[in-house]
Amino acid sequence: VFTADIIRNIGKPIQFSRILCSFSLDYDNIENQLFLEEERRMSYLGFRCLEISRWVVCGWIGFLTGLIACFIDIAVEELAGFKYQVVKENIEKFTEVGGLSISLLLWAVLNAAIVMVGAIIVAYFEPIAAGSGIPQIKCYLNGIKIPRVVRLKTLVVKVCGVICSVVGGLAVGKEGPMIHSGAVVAAGVSQGRSTSLKKDFKIFEYFRRDTEKRDFVSAGAAAGVSAAFGAPVGGVLFSLEEGASFWNQMLTWRIFFASMISTFTLNFFLSIYHKNTGDLSSPGLINFGRFEGDSVAYNLYEIPLFILMGAIGGLLGALFNILNYWLTIFRIRYVHRPCLQVMEAMLVAAVTATVSFTMIYFSNDCQPLGPEHAEEYPLQLFCADGEYNSMATAFFNTPERSVRSLFHNQAGTYNPLTLGLFTLTYFFLACWTYGLAVSAGVFIPSLLIGAAWGRLFGILLAYITPNSAAKWADPGKYALIGAAAQLGGIVRMTLSLTVIMVEATGNVTYGFPIMLVLMTAKIVGDYIVEGLYDIHIKLQSVPFLHWEAPATSHWLTAREVMSSPVTCLNRIEKVGTIVDTLSNTSTKHNGFPVVVQPAKLCGLILRSQLIVLLKHKVFVELARSRLTHRKLQLKDFRDAYPRFPPIQSIHVSQDERECMMDLTEFMNPTPYTVPQETSLPRVFKLFRALGLRHLVVVDDENRVVGLVTRKDLARYHLGKHGLEELQLAQT
Amino acid sequence: VFTADIIRNIGKPIQFSRILCSFSLDYDNIENQLFLEEERRMSYLGFRCLEISRWVVCGWIGFLTGLIACFIDIAVEELAGFKYQVVKENIEKFTEVGGLSISLLLWAVLNAAIVMVGAIIVAYFEPIAAGSGIPQIKCYLNGIKIPRVVRLKTLVVKVCGVICSVVGGLAVGKEGPMIHSGAVVAAGVSQGRSTSLKKDFKIFEYFRRDTEKRDFVSAGAAAGVSAAFGAPVGGVLFSLEEGASFWNQMLTWRIFFASMISTFTLNFFLSIYHKNTGDLSSPGLINFGRFEGDSVAYNLYEIPLFILMGAIGGLLGALFNILNYWLTIFRIRYVHRPCLQVMEAMLVAAVTATVSFTMIYFSNDCQPLGPEHAEEYPLQLFCADGEYNSMATAFFNTPERSVRSLFHNQAGTYNPLTLGLFTLTYFFLACWTYGLAVSAGVFIPSLLIGAAWGRLFGILLAYITPNSAAKWADPGKYALIGAAAQLGGIVRMTLSLTVIMVEATGNVTYGFPIMLVLMTAKIVGDYIVEGLYDIHIKLQSVPFLHWEAPATSHWLTAREVMSSPVTCLNRIEKVGTIVDTLSNTSTKHNGFPVVVQPAKLCGLILRSQLIVLLKHKVFVELARSRLTHRKLQLKDFRDAYPRFPPIQSIHVSQDERECMMDLTEFMNPTPYTVPQETSLPRVFKLFRALGLRHLVVVDDENRVVGLVTRKDLARYHLGKHGLEELQLAQT
Repeated sequence: VFTADIIRNIGKPIQFSRILCSFSLDYDNIENQLFLEEERRMSYLGFRCLEISRWVVCGWIGFLTGLIACFIDIAVEELAGFKYQVVKENIEKFTEVGGLSISLLLWAVLNAAIVMVGAIIVAYFEPIAAGSGIPQIKCYLNGIKIPRVVRLKTLVVKVCGVICSVVGGLAVGKEGPMIHSGAVVAAGVSQGRSTSLKKDFKIFEYFRRDTEKRDFVSAGAAAGVSAAFGAPVGGVLFSLEEGASFWNQMLTWRIFFASMISTFTLNFFLSIYHKNTGDLSSPGLINFGRFEGDSVAYNLYEIPLFILMGAIGGLLGALFNILNYWLTIFRIRYVHRPCLQVMEAMLVAAVTATVSFTMIYFSNDCQPLGPEHAEEYPLQLFCADGEYNSMATAFFNTPERSVRSLFHNQAGTYNPLTLGLFTLTYFFLACWTYGLAVSAGVFIPSLLIGAAWGRLFGILLAYITPNSAAKWADPGKYALIGAAAQLGGIVRMTLSLTVIMVEATGNVTYGFPIMLVLMTAKIVGDYIVEGLYDIHIKLQSVPFLHWEAPATSHWLTAREVMSSPVTCLNRIEKVGTIVDTLSNTSTKHNGFPVVVQPAKLCGLILRSQLIVLLKHKVFVELARSRLTHRKLQLKDFRDAYPRFPPIQSIHVSQDERECMMDLTEFMNPTPYTVPQETSLPRVFKLFRALGLRHLVVVDDENRVVGLVTRKDLARYHLGKHGLEELQLAQT
Repeated sequence: VFTADIIRNIGKPIQFSRILCSFSLDYDNIENQLFLEEERRMSYLGFRCLEISRWVVCGWIGFLTGLIACFIDIAVEELAGFKYQVVKENIEKFTEVGGLSISLLLWAVLNAAIVMVGAIIVAYFEPIAAGSGIPQIKCYLNGIKIPRVVRLKTLVVKVCGVICSVVGGLAVGKEGPMIHSGAVVAAGVSQGRSTSLKKDFKIFEYFRRDTEKRDFVSAGAAAGVSAAFGAPVGGVLFSLEEGASFWNQMLTWRIFFASMISTFTLNFFLSIYHKNTGDLSSPGLINFGRFEGDSVAYNLYEIPLFILMGAIGGLLGALFNILNYWLTIFRIRYVHRPCLQVMEAMLVAAVTATVSFTMIYFSNDCQPLGPEHAEEYPLQLFCADGEYNSMATAFFNTPERSVRSLFHNQAGTYNPLTLGLFTLTYFFLACWTYGLAVSAGVFIPSLLIGAAWGRLFGILLAYITPNSAAKWADPGKYALIGAAAQLGGIVRMTLSLTVIMVEATGNVTYGFPIMLVLMTAKIVGDYIVEGLYDIHIKLQSVPFLHWEAPATSHWLTAREVMSSPVTCLNRIEKVGTIVDTLSNTSTKHNGFPVVVQPAKLCGLILRSQLIVLLKHKVFVELARSRLTHRKLQLKDFRDAYPRFPPIQSIHVSQDERECMMDLTEFMNPTPYTVPQETSLPRVFKLFRALGLRHLVVVDDENRVVGLVTRKDLARYHLGKHGLEELQLAQT
């Protein structure tokens, strides 16, 4: 409601679509004669082999995703460890002799320098690698083609970028980008070739089409979640919740397999790294630590408290999203040059270090340093010997470790003021950070903010009810609930997030409260503003299809929704006409109904197919004259997939323009159609359930009257004043 | 492969379809004028209210399902406790004075009597309540209408029946029937009325159609799983894996909500029963106990062992299924009279008691009775004082408790011979029991068999590697893996079963091994014979649609698959023609394409709609003569749903036969259509993804040439010799 208003006010589509100009993906098989012939030739054994190679591909996806996660984890741990060690020693030195401003300077410069590297590679080499990549993967699974989103170069930049961001001390996590990384791995492995490396392994050629590729990308995203949070089931659910429109049992099992292999690989290699080879019981990238024993119990009267926390999470999440929305608008308007983006990232890094330092400096929350203290880099600063600065456990640490401390440190480790101040500053830092031109996720900062105020909530609760509280108001428990509430309030996932949290904490007992909290956060948050990912998707003004048509859209029919008139081609068409149709820049259609006179629909052909046909000069006249001319095969289409050349690059001579092309063999002879009177929800359901790209609207004589595309459906939106039409980027 | 052979050999459809004569459900909305008018009249607020009432209904479904689970649990615990106490005292008495055969007699008679009650209510009052109900629910969610499967009477019989079976000492579990119970609750609550109680609450009338009802039944089944295993996520996945064809985010969240409420309700009331009010941390009906601490770790070199166990589970599961298949064929042929069914059930009960007694009697595995022994009813029998008979912990107990003992008792509690004998006897008992005319599930017996041989496996492993084994060969761990393998080998679920096992054990560490084991068991088992539920579904010869068309079916097109010629109706049709069409017993079609001359498709109307129209005499002539005649509304169709009267019950006079009926307003004006050349996989995908019941095949002039129904698609099956056509029951 809120953003729709803003978008109306702003009036024009945002220039962000400059980067993210979008096409659609075709999740419906093109069952033309070539395809059917191939399928009919294939024996049962052939299909079994295909099925087995799908499993093999998924295994590889899981394995490589796990390896990448492992690499990121070790790199971050080593580099961040080194950085904190240097800064710690420096601080210790100057605490005694005075002149801590030099330490501050060192810290700020170190951070800014590391972040600069990360920002430069993102801003200059691959802008699509910025952020967590989750909105992009959501779009991809939804059927929107975003250029370069699943390329090897993107992966390399993403991995290096995320290491720099986390080591650079930004308020970011390394988990979100894992999802994007998994998706890139999947797209690469399943196609058996790499454009960046200019290498074609000549394997898995059967998988070179959108349908199959999407299935593998789902598996990759799931493997990414699985590696990031040690949550294989959560990964599967994430893929399903965010992407799949048609649920298929075998596909789900394969996704699950990829997820499991991914967690397994990560655990195995990390167990070697931690010199504990073969012990596979540790979780994923993020380690929340186990909640075990008596502390996990909760009681009936705590349920209202959890719901209250959910509402707070929803409100804070909405605030976060609104602030980030305004910031993003500002960035799109004024910070779109790469050098400015790098400078902004460096500024944020320096400010983060400065704020952290200031907070630590002025904090007087000293805690005794226990024998089994969990802090990696306890800062003594001005505390007495044998004590450490409590604020530093939250700020002078990688965010993952801070979350773990908040979850598991004993009651009394933090005083309320520390937590309050930390929440406040970290909230704004994280909000400022998300959307920078660095590769980074928002999961961990959200969890950290939530864990801080959740723990604060628990502590206050113990103050209010001093008699009985000691037993049940375990601050770690409230930190966990707060973390769930805050994350839910920002990203608005429910089912998959519940499972991810449950798997990451290794305990199913909190399933019910976490679900309650996430539901509440979603309801409260949705009332104010959309989820963070949806906001960013909307800002890209891509034609994103939601699950169902808006509830009040039954009065719209295909007739009103469709694009009309449609450029149709004849079954046997002049080459000149085809070239002119494709070159016509005013109608950038990607699918053309094929008709026999008078206007009867007999098929559907795609722009990409026509391009391949033109490139191979599949003209009727040539076929007649040269009998030895090789027949065009499915392989030719697969080799060209997915980067079909533009029409301008194909030279057609004047003579050839007079030739004819027979589309019969190549067109899809049985495109899905709907009558003109079909209601929008019905059109939408067909479109979404089958992952269509074009839906032909016909009259009762089977004549083509219009074409429904993704853009036609995505523009209807339920706003404050009923149904609204959105303005979308030209596709 | 195996069963397809058998079915071919047997040649004729089995008479089981006598009970389970099937219709299809219509999961596609009939968007006729009446419906569209209602939808268009409805405001945004109206849709919000509907949405909220869906959540309310799901809340009630969860609550009531939880209550039923609670009732079953408490009833079984109390009654079984009483029974075992009586028998135990009797045994103790006669152990001293001799004459234990009297104890055996007491035990056998008690069991047989209790089981008799359960068998009588099932066999005489509601045969559909037999078994676990999972195959029936799978069919329902798939779109097959099985009469009386979601009626209140079925629920009552099911609940009483399952209590009798478990208390009667049969080798059964109470978990499977919970899924069926949840589904019945959902169907009842969501319709706001009960036929059995003859009460219409006049609420939720909007939900009185197949689409909405199916969604709620999914939620009910999930709530059932959730209550049975304390596995809310597992429940959601079960519903999705077995049912949903179109995944919708909001629907999934509602299902999840119902599941959560169900677990919550169960836990809450059980916490009161166990005098621990408000402690909600306990799991569902089945309590596997927590796996915690160091014992949960596993190591890399154990993975091959797990895979081996999976293979064993697959083999044993396949053996189980084959034996049960032959038994079921035998039962269908010779044991179809209710009195015979009751007698068979009593026989099984008596034999189970006798075998158990014999095993205990001849066992000499005495174990010391520790101070914190977990056994509820330790039998001393011929053991020394302070010792108990180890065989009795497995046999003289409810199966749930036996499973828990096998998982958690310390190493050395069972000797290998005890476990081996137990596995052997229990395997055959469970196999004999499944398919009896009693209400009972196969989950727990499968788990118990697997846990027994799994523990045996672990013990043998410790023998083989005596040096290092003590550390890692924890027999409880192997019992768990064995249980998963055996259950997976029998029912062949993977994703949902993994999650259920993980949630039921309250520990995510075993996720990966359990998945591996289930996958292996499925692959090995599928190579030999189908899963138990699929076998039983196939024996009912219902048109069950799998996820995809057989792989090698691309050479079939809609032309070959469709039923043709089709009875079409005119848009304005003579009443006599309609009555004759409906009365024609040779073509029992349920949907009729509506055409305008010459044969152009303009809509689709269902048998049920025509019946309502005839009943209300919606004739053109009457509408003209009586201007005050009430216009037929959607409400009239909803009131008649789902038990539309047969055509024979509707009286149409000779005069009325000459009247005309205008179908325009009532037919679905935009049925989905496909051209004749569409390949079978494409037809299948459309049919399955949208949950259709009828798909009209048209030529390129939009003239009706055929109709594809569920039966047309379900008969193709991938057999040993390529594609095969199955013989299905007449629908």
